[in-house]
Amino acid sequence: MAVSGPATLDSVAARAGVSRQTVSNVLRHPDRVAEATRQRVLDAIRESGYRPSLPARQLATRRAHAIAVRAERQQDGISGLVLDAFYHGLAEAGQDNGLRVLLYPQPVDEAAEVATIDELVHTGAADAVVLTATSADDERPAHLRERGTTFCAFGRPWGHEDEPHDWVDVDGSVGTGLAVDHLLALGHRRIAYLGWPGDGDQPSTGTDRRGGWLRALEAAGLGGAVIDVRSTNDSAAAQAVVAGLLTGPDAPDAIVCASDTLALGAHRAALATPGDPPTIVGFDATPVAAALGLASVAQPIDEVAHLCIDLLTSRFETPDRPARGLLVRPVLHLPT
Amino acid sequence: MAVSGPATLDSVAARAGVSRQTVSNVLRHPDRVAEATRQRVLDAIRESGYRPSLPARQLATRRAHAIAVRAERQQDGISGLVLDAFYHGLAEAGQDNGLRVLLYPQPVDEAAEVATIDELVHTGAADAVVLTATSADDERPAHLRERGTTFCAFGRPWGHEDEPHDWVDVDGSVGTGLAVDHLLALGHRRIAYLGWPGDGDQPSTGTDRRGGWLRALEAAGLGGAVIDVRSTNDSAAAQAVVAGLLTGPDAPDAIVCASDTLALGAHRAALATPGDPPTIVGFDATPVAAALGLASVAQPIDEVAHLCIDLLTSRFETPDRPARGLLVRPVLHLPT
Repeated sequence: MAVSGPATLDSVAARAGVSRQTVSNVLRHPDRVAEATRQRVLDAIRESGYRPSLPARQLATRRAHAIAVRAERQQDGISGLVLDAFYHGLAEAGQDNGLRVLLYPQPVDEAAEVATIDELVHTGAADAVVLTATSADDERPAHLRERGTTFCAFGRPWGHEDEPHDWVDVDGSVGTGLAVDHLLALGHRRIAYLGWPGDGDQPSTGTDRRGGWLRALEAAGLGGAVIDVRSTNDSAAAQAVVAGLLTGPDAPDAIVCASDTLALGAHRAALATPGDPPTIVGFDATPVAAALGLASVAQPIDEVAHLCIDLLTSRFETPDRPARGLLVRPVLHLPT
Repeated sequence: MAVSGPATLDSVAARAGVSRQTVSNVLRHPDRVAEATRQRVLDAIRESGYRPSLPARQLATRRAHAIAVRAERQQDGISGLVLDAFYHGLAEAGQDNGLRVLLYPQPVDEAAEVATIDELVHTGAADAVVLTATSADDERPAHLRERGTTFCAFGRPWGHEDEPHDWVDVDGSVGTGLAVDHLLALGHRRIAYLGWPGDGDQPSTGTDRRGGWLRALEAAGLGGAVIDVRSTNDSAAAQAVVAGLLTGPDAPDAIVCASDTLALGAHRAALATPGDPPTIVGFDATPVAAALGLASVAQPIDEVAHLCIDLLTSRFETPDRPARGLLVRPVLHLPT
């Protein structure tokens, strides 16, 4: 239907033969409008192509209808694709729930990040935030709770499981357990863990992944003398650690790694060492693991993103409901 | 300074001893306010921690102060990191220019994408869009121009260089030229191109990359009988193509690839073929190329993102200025 210029509240009102206030009521307080009138206004809205202004709706509802998430500075780059999929999942689930997804650039530290989030929330740009990269000494959750800012974390409140906030995480111990079971089925018995410094010392992503490896070995009766080595999350450092391991007395026939970055280093060390190379399993199922022909644990990132949006929308509806933590199961991707 | 509840226009006005309208003028029309008053209001704003509401500012300025960009569904995954860096660059440059960055999920096709962008712009959620993944038969630019939607493309208007819209792109032909020069310096003479179907037929990213390879060979006096093969952007397909090439009469001693996905296939074929493997150079400098020890052409994605924001902000200021296209130079990343 031809209209001159974009439809407005006034042109919709004129078309439906009602007042501007009635159109506004149909949009915001439909219970105040008689059914026949409501139907006539909805028809006029449809026919005219009228779309309520988001800023006006934001002012009326005192909500931004948007959530914010951090755009990461690139680190090693290998795990970046996990976030790529996370952004797409948030944008898709957000769209399904009438929520825009805003990116804010990664601030220099946690204090600066809390200030950035404050600004987004207090200026009405976002209603809530999805926190990424949580850790045991993460200062962000406490600061956000103090300010009454709605948030959901991708990642557990390590060591603070009693903290009253919503989170979604992947059960890493299930993932490394799947890796060990796969290696046992291949006939391996000397299955090492290559993790990060500190894994096992305090609750963390690495401790969780190491725990799954250890429990699976114990379940197979192989928990007596385990091979457990560490490297910073850098493939060259990991390569040096594994090169030493493979030429020493504790040479394993398989290695479960806490990340694909570590797996890349282990793979290079294996290629450079004479003899049967150990079988390497990575974590994150990045294209790097696929390119090297390594099995790797895949996090169901799309599911995590959708669950984060579910928790936020349920929190908007019921601000006082108890906090929820959701753990999802990873799967093992085998090389093709 | 202690205040009860968040600061408002009214509390700032009370603190400064002026009317609410004066505070509003200081924020939006500072030229209408005497300098001493303006200073007093700015002090009150600073002391009270007042932040103007984004929705109110959006309504007052009729601008969203936000731009939108597409969150991609994952494809082969290998080139995803380029977008990761692009998102971070946009968020950072956007923040520096008072622009939020909104993600919208990749729609099913170009028509659906134009409709999505329409909705974002017409509801006041975004002022402009950054288009990604442009192509010669891209319908989006013409539709957006028709609607008067402000946009900047990451990617040239292939074959439509006279089209009046802003774009930023990476000079791919410079990149493949750098790759050839690097291979020539290593002593290679039989330098093949592994590109996509259609490269060379019509203006496109692939034709541009192929052109740089060919001109560099010609400049070296090697343009007589070139080795020029094609594969869909799939590493298994590329592996089959290169396996055939390496066992045939035209076996090259180096291969310049149009993507790291193709380079991965070429690398696997080289590993599986007896004899001296050809040197492979990829495109996009992804972690996959680094993991395989391959040189690869790196796009300066952060610079592209900043230039897109520059073009959009200049377009907001001068809506009628002529369209601009900006080409930036890539660099060659060597394996470590």
